[in-house]
Amino acid sequence: MTKSSDTNTMWGGRFSGGPSAIMEKINASIDFDKRFYAQDIAGSKAHCAMLVKQGILNAEDGKAITEGLEKVLSEIEAGEFKFSAALEDIHMNVENRLRELIGDAAGRLHTARSRNDQVATDFRLWVRDAMDRLDEGLKVLQQALIERAEEQVDTILPGFTHLQAAQPVSLGHHLLAYVEMVGRDRSRVRDARARLNESPLGSAALAGTPYPIDRHHTAELLGFDGPMRNSLDGVSDRDFALEYLSAASICAVHLSRLSEELVIWSSAQFGFVRMSDSFSTGSSIMPQKKNPDAAELIRSKIGRVVGDLNSLMISMKGLPLAYSKDMQEDKEPVFDAADTIELSVAVMTGMIAEMTVNKETMRESAGWGFTTATDLADWLVRELGMPFRNAHHVTGAIVKLAEDKGCDLADLSLAEMQSVDGGITNAVYDVLTLEASVGSRTSYGGTAPVNVREQAADARKRFL
Amino acid sequence: MTKSSDTNTMWGGRFSGGPSAIMEKINASIDFDKRFYAQDIAGSKAHCAMLVKQGILNAEDGKAITEGLEKVLSEIEAGEFKFSAALEDIHMNVENRLRELIGDAAGRLHTARSRNDQVATDFRLWVRDAMDRLDEGLKVLQQALIERAEEQVDTILPGFTHLQAAQPVSLGHHLLAYVEMVGRDRSRVRDARARLNESPLGSAALAGTPYPIDRHHTAELLGFDGPMRNSLDGVSDRDFALEYLSAASICAVHLSRLSEELVIWSSAQFGFVRMSDSFSTGSSIMPQKKNPDAAELIRSKIGRVVGDLNSLMISMKGLPLAYSKDMQEDKEPVFDAADTIELSVAVMTGMIAEMTVNKETMRESAGWGFTTATDLADWLVRELGMPFRNAHHVTGAIVKLAEDKGCDLADLSLAEMQSVDGGITNAVYDVLTLEASVGSRTSYGGTAPVNVREQAADARKRFL
Amino acid sequence: MTKSSDTNTMWGGRFSGGPSAIMEKINASIDFDKRFYAQDIAGSKAHCAMLVKQGILNAEDGKAITEGLEKVLSEIEAGEFKFSAALEDIHMNVENRLRELIGDAAGRLHTARSRNDQVATDFRLWVRDAMDRLDEGLKVLQQALIERAEEQVDTILPGFTHLQAAQPVSLGHHLLAYVEMVGRDRSRVRDARARLNESPLGSAALAGTPYPIDRHHTAELLGFDGPMRNSLDGVSDRDFALEYLSAASICAVHLSRLSEELVIWSSAQFGFVRMSDSFSTGSSIMPQKKNPDAAELIRSKIGRVVGDLNSLMISMKGLPLAYSKDMQEDKEPVFDAADTIELSVAVMTGMIAEMTVNKETMRESAGWGFTTATDLADWLVRELGMPFRNAHHVTGAIVKLAEDKGCDLADLSLAEMQSVDGGITNAVYDVLTLEASVGSRTSYGGTAPVNVREQAADARKRFL
Amino acid sequence: MTKSSDTNTMWGGRFSGGPSAIMEKINASIDFDKRFYAQDIAGSKAHCAMLVKQGILNAEDGKAITEGLEKVLSEIEAGEFKFSAALEDIHMNVENRLRELIGDAAGRLHTARSRNDQVATDFRLWVRDAMDRLDEGLKVLQQALIERAEEQVDTILPGFTHLQAAQPVSLGHHLLAYVEMVGRDRSRVRDARARLNESPLGSAALAGTPYPIDRHHTAELLGFDGPMRNSLDGVSDRDFALEYLSAASICAVHLSRLSEELVIWSSAQFGFVRMSDSFSTGSSIMPQKKNPDAAELIRSKIGRVVGDLNSLMISMKGLPLAYSKDMQEDKEPVFDAADTIELSVAVMTGMIAEMTVNKETMRESAGWGFTTATDLADWLVRELGMPFRNAHHVTGAIVKLAEDKGCDLADLSLAEMQSVDGGITNAVYDVLTLEASVGSRTSYGGTAPVNVREQAADARKRFL
Repeated sequence: MTKSSDTNTMWGGRFSGGPSAIMEKINASIDFDKRFYAQDIAGSKAHCAMLVKQGILNAEDGKAITEGLEKVLSEIEAGEFKFSAALEDIHMNVENRLRELIGDAAGRLHTARSRNDQVATDFRLWVRDAMDRLDEGLKVLQQALIERAEEQVDTILPGFTHLQAAQPVSLGHHLLAYVEMVGRDRSRVRDARARLNESPLGSAALAGTPYPIDRHHTAELLGFDGPMRNSLDGVSDRDFALEYLSAASICAVHLSRLSEELVIWSSAQFGFVRMSDSFSTGSSIMPQKKNPDAAELIRSKIGRVVGDLNSLMISMKGLPLAYSKDMQEDKEPVFDAADTIELSVAVMTGMIAEMTVNKETMRESAGWGFTTATDLADWLVRELGMPFRNAHHVTGAIVKLAEDKGCDLADLSLAEMQSVDGGITNAVYDVLTLEASVGSRTSYGGTAPVNVREQAADARKRFL
Repeated sequence: MTKSSDTNTMWGGRFSGGPSAIMEKINASIDFDKRFYAQDIAGSKAHCAMLVKQGILNAEDGKAITEGLEKVLSEIEAGEFKFSAALEDIHMNVENRLRELIGDAAGRLHTARSRNDQVATDFRLWVRDAMDRLDEGLKVLQQALIERAEEQVDTILPGFTHLQAAQPVSLGHHLLAYVEMVGRDRSRVRDARARLNESPLGSAALAGTPYPIDRHHTAELLGFDGPMRNSLDGVSDRDFALEYLSAASICAVHLSRLSEELVIWSSAQFGFVRMSDSFSTGSSIMPQKKNPDAAELIRSKIGRVVGDLNSLMISMKGLPLAYSKDMQEDKEPVFDAADTIELSVAVMTGMIAEMTVNKETMRESAGWGFTTATDLADWLVRELGMPFRNAHHVTGAIVKLAEDKGCDLADLSLAEMQSVDGGITNAVYDVLTLEASVGSRTSYGGTAPVNVREQAADARKRFL
Repeated sequence: MTKSSDTNTMWGGRFSGGPSAIMEKINASIDFDKRFYAQDIAGSKAHCAMLVKQGILNAEDGKAITEGLEKVLSEIEAGEFKFSAALEDIHMNVENRLRELIGDAAGRLHTARSRNDQVATDFRLWVRDAMDRLDEGLKVLQQALIERAEEQVDTILPGFTHLQAAQPVSLGHHLLAYVEMVGRDRSRVRDARARLNESPLGSAALAGTPYPIDRHHTAELLGFDGPMRNSLDGVSDRDFALEYLSAASICAVHLSRLSEELVIWSSAQFGFVRMSDSFSTGSSIMPQKKNPDAAELIRSKIGRVVGDLNSLMISMKGLPLAYSKDMQEDKEPVFDAADTIELSVAVMTGMIAEMTVNKETMRESAGWGFTTATDLADWLVRELGMPFRNAHHVTGAIVKLAEDKGCDLADLSLAEMQSVDGGITNAVYDVLTLEASVGSRTSYGGTAPVNVREQAADARKRFL
Repeated sequence: MTKSSDTNTMWGGRFSGGPSAIMEKINASIDFDKRFYAQDIAGSKAHCAMLVKQGILNAEDGKAITEGLEKVLSEIEAGEFKFSAALEDIHMNVENRLRELIGDAAGRLHTARSRNDQVATDFRLWVRDAMDRLDEGLKVLQQALIERAEEQVDTILPGFTHLQAAQPVSLGHHLLAYVEMVGRDRSRVRDARARLNESPLGSAALAGTPYPIDRHHTAELLGFDGPMRNSLDGVSDRDFALEYLSAASICAVHLSRLSEELVIWSSAQFGFVRMSDSFSTGSSIMPQKKNPDAAELIRSKIGRVVGDLNSLMISMKGLPLAYSKDMQEDKEPVFDAADTIELSVAVMTGMIAEMTVNKETMRESAGWGFTTATDLADWLVRELGMPFRNAHHVTGAIVKLAEDKGCDLADLSLAEMQSVDGGITNAVYDVLTLEASVGSRTSYGGTAPVNVREQAADARKRFL
C-alpha cells in the first residue's frame, strides 16, 4: 500500500501533521515524566560517582558531569529549562542539555546504564517520596483527630448501626476509631516503602552489564537498602507502584467514610456539626445553607484513586518480560493518585480541625429511641442473674411502658419498673442515663471516657 | 477550638497559604472545565434568545448579551482570555468577563437559570461532540481496515485458537472481523448519543422555575431532540457520561486485541507484519529491531479508559438527589477517556494503513501443523458418508503418516492415503491445500475469498 | 525433569489427586455453564432442523436427535440429570446423554458445527433472556414508582443540594425522577439487545464450513434478526456481554442513589419514611429501631455488578483472535451480575411499594432554612423589575429579619418586609409558602403538582 | 398504600413467595458465610473460656457449651449439619444447634458479645488462614521455579523488550525474576497478616461492654497479637480484607505475565516450551496442536481477582460507622479471590514443574537479529576506549556487513571487522557469541551463569 500524503491526512484526521505528529503525541512522555527531574538527576549523579569510584570514568569527566547535572537541576527549578517533546522523555531532555553544557563527556554518563533502568530507578525514587509525603500528611491528620478527640471525650452522640441509633458513644471515641484506621494506612505505606526500597540501577537494558559496576554503592548513595537481585526483575516489575496505589485506595476508603459522616452530620436534620466557612460554600440568600463541599469532594475522589489503581492493574496485565512500551502508562495514574490523596488528606485535616461540634444536638439525638435499653437488659442479667431471654422480655416491656408514657427510660419511676419485674432496684438508674451507659463500657477499647482518655494518650505516643 | 494561624500552617503542610489555598485547590474546576467554553457560550446564547422570545428579557439586553458572549468566545479562541481560579469555574469566568464587557445586563442572563442546569447542559453538549468525534474516527479506522482487507483477500494466515494454528484463513477475513467489531462500537456510540440528546436546560436549580420559559425552544436551538421531562433528573443524572465511558471501554477492548496481535505478529518469531517507521522505534545498532511502540501503547491505554469508567461509577455511587459536589469529579475521567480513545483510534488507523504484510511468512505458518486436517475429516464425512467418529480416526492415522514422513498432507500419494482407507479418491486433494481449505469455506460469513470480497463490498456500503 | 509422584504431591499441595485433579478444577466449566442447558438444547434443535432442511442430515436421524434433545431437556428440568465434571461443559454433557439415549446418530448433530460457535450461541441466547428479564423487572419497578408518585403528588419535601435543603419539591416529582432514570436503563438494555441479536451459529470453529448450511434459517429459528457476517467475529467477540454488564452497572448506580436516600430518610433524624417490616429488621428491645437492611444491601451490591464488569473487561483485554481459553471466564461475572441486579430491582420494587411516607415530617423539614428565599428573590425580579443583584440583597435582609425573629418568611408582616423594600406588596405572600413555591414551578419538567400529575400520566403511557 | 397480595405478586415477579421470600434471598448469608464455621466455633470457644476465667459464666455451663460447640463442629465436618436460610447466618445456625444440644445454657454464650464482633472476628480469622495458605502456595511455586532455574542456568533464550529480541539471557535468570516477584508477593501477604492480627472480639455491638471481660485472653487464645484498641474500629473496618485482595491482585498480575509468556512460548512460531499433557488439551486430528489452556485460564483469572478487589472497594465507599448491612457483601469477593488465586498458584506450579523446554529452539531464536551487537559496542568502548557515539557507529557498520553477508557477527573474519575499524583485535570474538555475551554480564543481578547459580542458591536460602 502506497503511503501517500492523502492517506496520511485521511487517517490523521484532526491530528494535523500526519503520522509523525500523532505518533509524537502518543509516544512522548515528557509532559508527565518531567516530574521525575529531581530523581533523574539524583540517579545520574549517583551513577556518575560510582563510575568514577570504579575507574570506569575519569575524575575530570565525573566532575564535569556532576556540575553539569547540578546546573540542569537549578535551571529546571528556576523554571528556565525548555522541555522538548521531540526529545520524548525527561532522561533525554536532561542528557541533551547536559551535552549542550559540557560537551561529549555527557555521553560517558550513559556507560553501563540504559534508559530502562533509569526509568525504573527514577520511578522508585519518586514513589518513595510520595510514600513519605503521604505518611507525613496522615500523621498530621491523626494529630488533628487526636486533638479533637481529647477535646470531645465527654461529648455523647448516638453510636449508629444501619444509620439507626444503637448505643450512645463518646465523640472522642468515634474520632479515635479513625486514628486507628489512619494508623494502619500509615503502617501500610511504610511496609510498602520498605519493600520498594531496593535499587534497580545497574540492571542495564535487562541483562546486567559486563562493566565492573558497583550496584551496592549507587544503592547506598540513593538511600536504597541495597540493589535488586535480578536485572530482569529490576527493569520489569511495577508492583511497588501497584502497592502504593492499593494503599492510597484503602486510605481513600477510610476518608470517604469520614466524609460521608461529615456530610450527613452537616445536614439540618442531623445538625451534629457545622463545617467552617473555609471548607464550605453558602448561599447569599439562604444564610443557614452551608454546603459541605470539601467533604463531598473527598468522598468523590475515592473514585479517582481506585480508578488509577485499576488502570495500572489492567495496563500491567499479561506483559511479557522485560520492558514493554505499555509500561509507559505506569506514571500518570500514580501521579494523579498521589496528588489526589495528598490533597484529600490535607483538606480533611483542615475540616476536622475547624469544624464546630454541636454537643447539645448530638446528645439529644443520642437519647432518642431508648438507646440505653441494652444497658437495662445487661443490668438485669448481670445484677439480677436473669437469663438473657427473660431480660430481653422484661426490657421490652419496660421500653413499651416508656414509649406509651412518652418519656425516657430514666424518667420511669421505680414502682413503674417494678410493675414489670419486682426484683428491680434503685441501682438500675445508674445505667439508664446516657452518661451512665457510656461510662459503664470500660472493657478494653470500649467507649467509657476513662478509656478514651487513655486511648488518646496512647495514640499520641504511638503515632505523633 | 480556636483557629490559630499556627494550626492552619500545621495542617496545610506543604500546601502553603492555609485553608483558603487548599480549599481553592480542591474546589476550583476551572483548570479542567474550561474545556466547556464553547458549549457554555452556546448554551448561554440559546438561553438568551429564548428569554427575549418569551419577553423575559428585552431585545436590547439580548443583543448586548449575545454580542458580548461572541466576543468572549473569540477572546478564548484567540488565547487572549485570562482564566481565574478565584472565579472557580468556566461559568463564572465567562459571566464575569461578560459583565466587564457589557455591564449589568450580564446579570439578566442568569434569569430563570442556575449553575446546576448550566453544568448539566454544557456537559451533555461536550459529550455529544465527543461521541460524534469517536464515531467519525472509528469510521476512518474502518476505511483503513476495509482497504487493507480488500488488498489482502488472498493472503492466507493461520487462524488461531489458543494461539495455536487451527485452520487457514484469509487475512482480509481477519481484518473484516475488526470492521464488524468497530461497526458495533459505532452503533453503541450512536445509541448513546440518541439517549443523551435531551436538554436539561431550564431545570433551574433543581425544581424548575416560575418564569414562563420555553424549554423546547432552547432544546431546539442546541440541537437537542427536546427537553428532559423531570427537572430533578435533569440536574442530577450523569448516566450519559457513564454510557459514553462504557462504549469507549468496550472499544478499547477491541483495540487492545488488535494491538496484541500486531505486537505478536511483529515479533521475529512470527514475522507476519512489519510496522512502519512512523509507528515504531528502532535501535541504532540492531537494525532488525523494530519495536511496535504504538501498538503497545494502545494495548496499554485500555487501562486508562476502563479506569476512567470505574472512577465515575464509584464517584456516582450512592449520591442522593439532586446535585452533590461529588459530581464535580465527573468531567476529568470523561476528558481523559475521550482524549485517549480518540488518539488510540487515530494511531491504530495509521498503523493499519502503513504496516507491511509478509505474505510468504504468513502462508508458511498457515501450513504448519496440518491445519487442513479438519478439511480432510470433513471430506471423509461429506464425500464418503463416513460417520464423524471414524472420519476422525482415519484422519488421525493419515496425519500420523505425514508426520512420520515429515511432509504435508497434500504431499502424501493417493496410495499412501488409501493404505489407511481404501475409499479415498483423488478428489481429496481438492481440500488438502491451504487455498482449497480457505476456498471451501463458503458458508455465510465464512473465510472463502469469494465471501470475503462480498463482505468487504458490503462493509463499504454499510459503514463508509 | 521427571514427573515423579512426589513432585505432583508437592505442588498439588492441598489439591489432592495431582495434576489431573487441579486441572479438572480449573478447566471444567460445567458447574456454571449448566445454566445454559435450555439455550444449548434450543440451539442444537435449530441446528438439527436446518441440517435436515438442507439435506445434510436425514429426516430419521433428525427426528431421533430432536426427540432425544427434548428428553434431555425434560430430564434436566426434572432434576434427574447427572452432570459430570469429567465431561467438562454443558455441551458435552448434553451430547453424551444424547448418545446414551439415541446412539450414534447423536454424533451427526455435530456436523458443520463446533463447540466454539455453540458456546457463542448459547451465551448470546442467555444474555438476551437476561436482558428481557431486566427490562421487565425495571418496568415493574417503574410501575411501583409511578403509583407512589401519583399518591404523593402533593407531599412536599425539601429538594436537596449537598444534602442541604434548597427548595421545596413534590415527593411525586422526586419519585418520577427515578422513573426517568429507570426508563433510560430500560432503553439501554433494549438497544443492547438489538445489537446482540445476530446469530453466530454456523461460524464453525472460526472459519466457516464447506457444508451447505443455512445460517439464516437457524438464526430465524432462534429468534435472531439474522446471522453475524464474519465467522471470526462470531466466535471471538464478547462485546454483547460487556454491554449488558455496563447497562446493569449504570442501573446499579441509579439503585444505589435511591437506596442511599432511603437509608438516610429512614434515620430517626430525618424520619421521612419507614420501611415495612418485610424489608427491614428490628431489635427485640429497642422497638423504634428499624434497620433498612434491604436498602443497604442494594446500595452495596453496586460493588458486585461493577466488579463483574471490570472483571470481564480485564479478562478480554489483549486476547488475539479467535477463541482463547481465557474466554471461559466470561460467564460467571455475567451470571453473578444478572442474579444481583434482578434481585436488587425486585427488592427495590417491594420497598417502594411498601414504605410508609411521613408526610408531616417531610413537610416540616421542607420549611427549615427559608427554602422559599429563592422564590422571594424571583418575585422581586419578576414583579418589581428589580435587578437580580438588588433582589438578592433585599432577600438576604428579609431572611435576616426572619432569622432574628425566629420565624418563617411567611410569618413576617407586610410592614416588616416593606421596612426593607417599600415596593413589596401583599402579593408577595403568594410565593412564600411551601405550597406556593412548589405550585409556582410550572415550567416544563418543573415540580408544580399540575406538572407532576401530567408527568405521571405521561410516564404511564410511555413505560407501562 | 394498602399492601394487597396482588401488589406483592406483582413486584415479586418471578421471585415467588412475595416480600418475605425475596427479602430472605437478599438478606440471608448462610449460603456463603457457612465457610466461617470453623472460625465461628473457635471464636465461641475462646469467648466461653474467657467468660469462665472471668467468673461471668460458671464452669459447668462453660463445659456444656464447649462440648456442645465441639459436637456442632464435628457434625458440620461430617456433613451432617442442616444449614437453614431462615436462621440467616452461620452464627445463628451454630447457636441454634447448640441450644438444641445443650438447652438454655447456650444463651449464656452470648453474654458480653454481639453478632457484630462475632462477624468481625470470624472474618479476620478466615482471611488470616487464607493468607497463610497463599504464602505457603507461593512458596511451593518458588520451589518449582528455583528447581527449573537451577536446571536451566545454561539455557540461552532471547531477552525481549517490546517482544523483540534485545540481548541473550539465561533461562534460569528469567525464571528467577519470577522468584523475586513471588517473594515480594509473599512478603506483602505476611505484612498484611501482621497488620490484620489484632482481635476485634470484645468490641460488642460497637461500644464495648460493661462486663469485666478479658480481651487480651481471647486474643491470645485465637492466636492474635492482642486486642484492637477501639471498639468502633473493631466492628467497622474491613481494610484487612481490602489489603488481602490487593495483595492477591498484585500476585495475579505477576501470574498473568508468566502465563502470557507461556502462551506465546507455546506457539508453533516461538516453540520455546511445550506444556505437559496434564495442563493442556489437544486435538484428536491435529496431533501437533497443544492448547495451553491452563496458562490461558490463569491469565484470565486476574480479571476476577481485580474485579473482587474493586467490588469491595466500592461496597465500602462512604459507609458511616459502625456496622452497616452493606458490609455483608464483604465476604463473597474475598472467598472468590482466595479460591481463584490459590488454584491459579497451584496450577502454575504444576505447569512450571512439568513443562518441556526446547533449548535448541530458544538458543536459535536468541541468535536472530545480532543480539550481541550491544556487546560489540560495549567492547569497543571498554577495550578500545572509543567514545560511545563512535562505538555505535562502528557497530552499526559491522552489523550491516554481517547482514549483507547473511551471517552472524561471530562469523565475520577479523579482516572484515578491521575493514570497519582497524583497532579491532581477535579478543573481540570473546564477546560475540551468545555464551560470551551471557557469560560477560557478571554485574550484581546480571545474567551470567555464575551469577544465576549464586542467585538460585541464595533464593533457596531466603525463600524455601
